[in-house]
Amino acid sequence: MPFFDPAERAAKELFPGIFTRTFWGDKILISMLDMEPNGDVPFHSHPHEQAGVVIEGELELTIDGEVRLLGPGQVFVIPGGMEHRARTLDKPAKVIDIFSPVREEYKF
Amino acid sequence: MPFFDPAERAAKELFPGIFTRTFWGDKILISMLDMEPNGDVPFHSHPHEQAGVVIEGELELTIDGEVRLLGPGQVFVIPGGMEHRARTLDKPAKVIDIFSPVREEYKF
Repeated sequence: MPFFDPAERAAKELFPGIFTRTFWGDKILISMLDMEPNGDVPFHSHPHEQAGVVIEGELELTIDGEVRLLGPGQVFVIPGGMEHRARTLDKPAKVIDIFSPVREEYKF
Repeated sequence: MPFFDPAERAAKELFPGIFTRTFWGDKILISMLDMEPNGDVPFHSHPHEQAGVVIEGELELTIDGEVRLLGPGQVFVIPGGMEHRARTLDKPAKVIDIFSPVREEYKF
């Protein structure tokens, strides 16, 4: 079935106040994030390449030591193995994260 | 450079009234589509897996003969090699398409 409605899917809390619904094929996994204010995905890395788009609100993203505040429509690409951190400040945010290969532990 | 602002990038017209800005890494290519009303990406297939999310407006998507009208937040995953078509009706739409492997001919 190629069509999915996130409204029919229960959200999973990844970190305090940071919820996701995930969708995947063989090569791509999409993580649709709802982030409350003051959310923090602490520094980490993974071998998977990650890309993403901010849909609503603002995301403070640190990639390889460079800090940026991203708004709606802005895009990022994180090479596999590169350290990164993502935070919300005083506003909530909606963000689409994309991983390839599929992050098996994100198949919720 | 892991940060990108589509506002700084010229759009490429893929089909009449269907514009994209693309961003990519080694495994993932993101195509940020701005589609005018009555846009049509006719039936086609490619070996790349494709996934996507509707951001604004409505997208009529036909995948392997199944037709759906998708709205904001709805998600699709198209296996490599599967025939599909995408249309806008009387409204414009913004859609994020994701490809893996990278579609080399979409590196604009």
